[in-house]
Amino acid sequence: MLPNGIRAQWSAGKPVINGWLSIACPFTAEIMAAQGYDSITIDLQHGLIGYEVATTMLQAMRASAVTPLVRVPWLDPAAIMKSLDAGAYGVICPMINTREEAERLVSYVRYPPDGMRSFGPTRANFSAGADYGQHADAEVLCFAMIEAADAVANLDAIVSTPGLDGVYIGPADLTLGLSGRRYPTGFDREEPEIVEVIQTILHKAHKAGIRACLHNGTPTYGAKAIGWGFDLVTISNDVRLLAGAAQASVATARKLIADQEPSPAATATGGY
Amino acid sequence: MLPNGIRAQWSAGKPVINGWLSIACPFTAEIMAAQGYDSITIDLQHGLIGYEVATTMLQAMRASAVTPLVRVPWLDPAAIMKSLDAGAYGVICPMINTREEAERLVSYVRYPPDGMRSFGPTRANFSAGADYGQHADAEVLCFAMIEAADAVANLDAIVSTPGLDGVYIGPADLTLGLSGRRYPTGFDREEPEIVEVIQTILHKAHKAGIRACLHNGTPTYGAKAIGWGFDLVTISNDVRLLAGAAQASVATARKLIADQEPSPAATATGGY
Amino acid sequence: MLPNGIRAQWSAGKPVINGWLSIACPFTAEIMAAQGYDSITIDLQHGLIGYEVATTMLQAMRASAVTPLVRVPWLDPAAIMKSLDAGAYGVICPMINTREEAERLVSYVRYPPDGMRSFGPTRANFSAGADYGQHADAEVLCFAMIEAADAVANLDAIVSTPGLDGVYIGPADLTLGLSGRRYPTGFDREEPEIVEVIQTILHKAHKAGIRACLHNGTPTYGAKAIGWGFDLVTISNDVRLLAGAAQASVATARKLIADQEPSPAATATGGY
Amino acid sequence: MLPNGIRAQWSAGKPVINGWLSIACPFTAEIMAAQGYDSITIDLQHGLIGYEVATTMLQAMRASAVTPLVRVPWLDPAAIMKSLDAGAYGVICPMINTREEAERLVSYVRYPPDGMRSFGPTRANFSAGADYGQHADAEVLCFAMIEAADAVANLDAIVSTPGLDGVYIGPADLTLGLSGRRYPTGFDREEPEIVEVIQTILHKAHKAGIRACLHNGTPTYGAKAIGWGFDLVTISNDVRLLAGAAQASVATARKLIADQEPSPAATATGGY
Amino acid sequence: MLPNGIRAQWSAGKPVINGWLSIACPFTAEIMAAQGYDSITIDLQHGLIGYEVATTMLQAMRASAVTPLVRVPWLDPAAIMKSLDAGAYGVICPMINTREEAERLVSYVRYPPDGMRSFGPTRANFSAGADYGQHADAEVLCFAMIEAADAVANLDAIVSTPGLDGVYIGPADLTLGLSGRRYPTGFDREEPEIVEVIQTILHKAHKAGIRACLHNGTPTYGAKAIGWGFDLVTISNDVRLLAGAAQASVATARKLIADQEPSPAATATGGY
Amino acid sequence: MLPNGIRAQWSAGKPVINGWLSIACPFTAEIMAAQGYDSITIDLQHGLIGYEVATTMLQAMRASAVTPLVRVPWLDPAAIMKSLDAGAYGVICPMINTREEAERLVSYVRYPPDGMRSFGPTRANFSAGADYGQHADAEVLCFAMIEAADAVANLDAIVSTPGLDGVYIGPADLTLGLSGRRYPTGFDREEPEIVEVIQTILHKAHKAGIRACLHNGTPTYGAKAIGWGFDLVTISNDVRLLAGAAQASVATARKLIADQEPSPAATATGGY
Repeated sequence: MLPNGIRAQWSAGKPVINGWLSIACPFTAEIMAAQGYDSITIDLQHGLIGYEVATTMLQAMRASAVTPLVRVPWLDPAAIMKSLDAGAYGVICPMINTREEAERLVSYVRYPPDGMRSFGPTRANFSAGADYGQHADAEVLCFAMIEAADAVANLDAIVSTPGLDGVYIGPADLTLGLSGRRYPTGFDREEPEIVEVIQTILHKAHKAGIRACLHNGTPTYGAKAIGWGFDLVTISNDVRLLAGAAQASVATARKLIADQEPSPAATATGGY
Repeated sequence: MLPNGIRAQWSAGKPVINGWLSIACPFTAEIMAAQGYDSITIDLQHGLIGYEVATTMLQAMRASAVTPLVRVPWLDPAAIMKSLDAGAYGVICPMINTREEAERLVSYVRYPPDGMRSFGPTRANFSAGADYGQHADAEVLCFAMIEAADAVANLDAIVSTPGLDGVYIGPADLTLGLSGRRYPTGFDREEPEIVEVIQTILHKAHKAGIRACLHNGTPTYGAKAIGWGFDLVTISNDVRLLAGAAQASVATARKLIADQEPSPAATATGGY
Repeated sequence: MLPNGIRAQWSAGKPVINGWLSIACPFTAEIMAAQGYDSITIDLQHGLIGYEVATTMLQAMRASAVTPLVRVPWLDPAAIMKSLDAGAYGVICPMINTREEAERLVSYVRYPPDGMRSFGPTRANFSAGADYGQHADAEVLCFAMIEAADAVANLDAIVSTPGLDGVYIGPADLTLGLSGRRYPTGFDREEPEIVEVIQTILHKAHKAGIRACLHNGTPTYGAKAIGWGFDLVTISNDVRLLAGAAQASVATARKLIADQEPSPAATATGGY
Repeated sequence: MLPNGIRAQWSAGKPVINGWLSIACPFTAEIMAAQGYDSITIDLQHGLIGYEVATTMLQAMRASAVTPLVRVPWLDPAAIMKSLDAGAYGVICPMINTREEAERLVSYVRYPPDGMRSFGPTRANFSAGADYGQHADAEVLCFAMIEAADAVANLDAIVSTPGLDGVYIGPADLTLGLSGRRYPTGFDREEPEIVEVIQTILHKAHKAGIRACLHNGTPTYGAKAIGWGFDLVTISNDVRLLAGAAQASVATARKLIADQEPSPAATATGGY
Repeated sequence: MLPNGIRAQWSAGKPVINGWLSIACPFTAEIMAAQGYDSITIDLQHGLIGYEVATTMLQAMRASAVTPLVRVPWLDPAAIMKSLDAGAYGVICPMINTREEAERLVSYVRYPPDGMRSFGPTRANFSAGADYGQHADAEVLCFAMIEAADAVANLDAIVSTPGLDGVYIGPADLTLGLSGRRYPTGFDREEPEIVEVIQTILHKAHKAGIRACLHNGTPTYGAKAIGWGFDLVTISNDVRLLAGAAQASVATARKLIADQEPSPAATATGGY
Repeated sequence: MLPNGIRAQWSAGKPVINGWLSIACPFTAEIMAAQGYDSITIDLQHGLIGYEVATTMLQAMRASAVTPLVRVPWLDPAAIMKSLDAGAYGVICPMINTREEAERLVSYVRYPPDGMRSFGPTRANFSAGADYGQHADAEVLCFAMIEAADAVANLDAIVSTPGLDGVYIGPADLTLGLSGRRYPTGFDREEPEIVEVIQTILHKAHKAGIRACLHNGTPTYGAKAIGWGFDLVTISNDVRLLAGAAQASVATARKLIADQEPSPAATATGGY
């Protein structure tokens, strides 16, 4: 089985830069996989992506060196097992709020006797290797999202769940969950109380011997989080990158045109 | 029939900023349609896009104020008529090198007696209006691409073709066609001989009373072209915008992380 | 955020005519959205439709004035949240039989602190507006289907669930649930005992200050239900409309041909 | 090879009622195939349909008794041969205006030595039978559309083309082609000069020993055409049937509601 | 309603040979449906298949004599009911480990009063017949997979669940569940302890009056299982059949080429 | 640019074993790409495959060592250039019957000044490398199919076309073209007159300094052809491999079951 690049990177003492796919398209996946990310996550929760296109996105990223992850829509054995059978090297599961939920998550990711994952890695047998069954439990990563008040309350119990590889913090939901509508929604929190919780989660995870990952809206915040000690940071996603770049491109063109004197448009189109 | 926004803009003496879609996905089309472009072209020639997804892209852009165009793969009546029936407000046709080709192009775009377009605007009846048949010939735009040495040689005959609304210059092919492999491929030409040809095409088009459009790789060159008098400029496409933004994002993250002292990665991941 | 047309209509004291999509196709959605319905529901439960095509159907309806709803397949947080993130302005959830189920339904539809919906309105940010997060809880509609004997038994507890906007009656299942196989399956019930239950649900909903909606097979029954006081009625669906119209068209042709004397067919095809 | 139902029907002296698919969806095809048509045509010309979905539509109709035809987008060997390989039992080709075009059409439909169709009936081997290659030339139908002024002028030469099974009249294009914009577009022509041309085509086809087919917008006109002697009539299509039925359904509901006194809506929704 | 071919075969005292689809493609389904299987199962659990393509696969198999089943991804009412509404004649549900799970499974498959299946057989009304609602409970098959240690422990309680038609053994998971990693993964078990459990399940099922089905990797083991008394055997799947045949074909070519003397390759390609 | 594996193999004096895809599915492509073929051709002519799925098949094969080719549907610049832009390393074009057709084929495959291919390798820039434009003309392969009587008559003129890399023989069409219906259709011809023509084509190609390729139905004939000197042989395709393997599997099961005494089926299913 091809080894998990994230594990390799961590073993080498290097943090992981993760990309994020919310657009259902194998070509955007192939493009993103060529931009230098260490890993890329297909978001089946909030991404406009279903299972069928996700499989073609995994295929389109296979030729790259990027490690493919899937964020599943919910703590659902079908979604988790189908993502892994399709070749994902790890799952990020939203809204893990209790130890019991964390244990169920692990059980869906690991084969017996460590869990209850059903055997049938139909595509993984090709993409990861014919010996997938022997190595999957050691290679596949299992992340629990910490993003609700209950999850913070139950943090010690969650991070110590056997078989869990790490926590993944969703700052938008975490902020909503902790403070309701007091603050605007979004990532890259600056409120001291939220930052403190984020750092607490990081430290408790590390203390429990597991990894800590953070979702970010910008590379700047992502780099800061690495500085705090995070092991994996997501920095923006395909939707924001495309929309942002297009918007900036149009604005640049409009400004440069407006700055021209006399107005070229009038000249250019005069008389037709 | 909903009027053609490009014609409206030109009537108001304003140049047109055109976006470009090479990714086969209705969501990327919907995202791009929200970024401020006046018009957006679905590229069925070099885009990784076929007819079926193109129809969903046209649907996804319908709610926006953007005028949808299609670049067809070749001078082919089926491709041209199907694009128009699906609701495109104009076609850009590659490699129009002779007057006869320009006349065939026009004939595929106009209904009799002005052309030979077959009647059956199956989706346009919904997206443009039930009175589409009466107004289509006056609203739909027909552009011939000038991008080969023959086209330049036959320019006067092409630009005077009745029913042609404009020329669209493909600088990468034009450079290849005029100078073979002497220069690197790409848009935004700086070679004086190529720039001169581009400006000659612009002026001959205007002299013949039709519009001139230019494909560009950057908003900067696009704005310069507007300054020269071009009526419509394309400024980059979805693939380059996404790839460029993602690449820059990763580079920023890596640089910021590398600049941190001592290396946070070592700390962050030490001991696991 | 674009306001919810159903709420606007109700505020103006007008009932809502709802269309229904069971065919997985963006073009049928676009066609249906042009026929005068106030709202249209994509049926992910019994419709032959999955999530991926549903997103293109939402896109194809965006340009219309129709308010898009989704009937989700079951009380499942993933299906509910993904539908809303994709731009649905409301969800209809089948088989809500207890207060606890109604509360879970509401919790999946509302953001904290009113519920546990996870934040990430990937397409709604474009289709509904960039300020979606601030207004979604006030605009999005949450309907519980009352269609089983248990639901009727628990009706008072269900209709008083905070955050629930209305009940939606599925008469086929309701009849099956209340009377087993005693009556034929279908909508538009005429059995007095079933009609009485339908009206009881209507009145209990109104008494609790929430809306009452009814699924119908014909506009006639739908209009009757409006006369009873229903706030929203579904009148047939795409499958029945298409099948019915095609069947009638063929029957008309066959009858007209058969009525011709002497049989033209014999003449027409004789001798070949 | 399963025999061609249209040929069987004609041999039995019966005219053929043809359905028409412009929506790209296997389920609408399956629904339409259950409504009593003798044959159904997938319209790859004006339908919003490409090749890939068309293959699934052919599959979805296979279990029915309906004979599947394809209208190809243009006189293009690739489109014609791919449609036949996919299992179509006949092709209708638009805009056949000369004898030479009619001969090319036949050549694309027949195997050597009668034509130049390339051998490889990949799906037809399954759907029509493993002996497809031996019988295809005798079973598959080849129709030339007569819908332009040139076609009428060259009619005698066209109808006598060896291997052509029939002509198919497109009245909308024919009217446009013969009279330009003098008359409104559409089927079911009532102008005497157009009706005369339609009947002339019918009689010349029959005199040449081939079939005559007419595209109609209603079963009424279709039945009239059968009365004139036409061998196959198309009566409306899926788009019009669905749109018409939905529009009528909404109108009925609105009228019935408006007729109720006092306005139930006011009552129904009052007080919320 | 078209009768269930599996029930017919069993009534005639014949065992059932079942095919298995793990590839998401209507054409592979159509090909497989022509190879002589009695029934074919679309695997939505481990197959690389989602709901949307599955519906086109059901359509593509409809013209054949094969009885279509679906293995659902998990004990989930949405997945089960949607598969049946789409026309599946039975469901195989993974990981049924307790009587309570078996009862829930049955309840999702049967209409009230025998279960809680919601009424709306949107495609089944066409593919199985308009009287589907009356006969579905008597025709549709409901299979519980026995493939975990708990399932074996609870076997007596499971097999006696009213409404359950049979058990389906997944030998790979069963072996993992019973013996952890002691044995290699896979079907066609030869370990006496596993064979004994398989036969015990068979006999307990038969004693309880229900059917016993076994998943196999080869026709040889499948035939042996029929000899033991199994009622339905799956023999390999599309992925293994395609991969195996292709691999053997390449190996044969390579060997034959290598056996030629002198090496033809050298000659063939020499000098270019 | 990643070098073309076929050219590398030929430079090393080794013949090429080519696989063939007629099923529109990225997973079958990924499976086939793992079975040991040197190159694999996506058949857009007779395969049940359109452009859009073909792009996902190219993506799914990218991670393998297999060189991807496309057989285009016809001598059409759009189909040829779109296949190359999508990342195909060569095109096989059907029915090249004259020198003029061969020259047009080459012109569509090569950039100016050697041809008229338009520049825009949208996906090839990612899959083959960002320097694709500089190396494509030297790496991409261009094959003309010789499969009609005219092609044989014009063979000398065709094989000497500058820029043509080889001929590809389609024995089914060639036999039809040369002998009409005298022989059954199919590959792997044994008629001496056909074999002689095949060998003549091989020798004329080699004499002209270009490659010779043969389509075969079995590895046995393919190996024989290598022995004759062919440079590339196709040995069967995905449809035949899957159908053949499935049919053999069912037959084996049925035979083994029938051979059991006493009939196990009777026993197994008795009494239910």
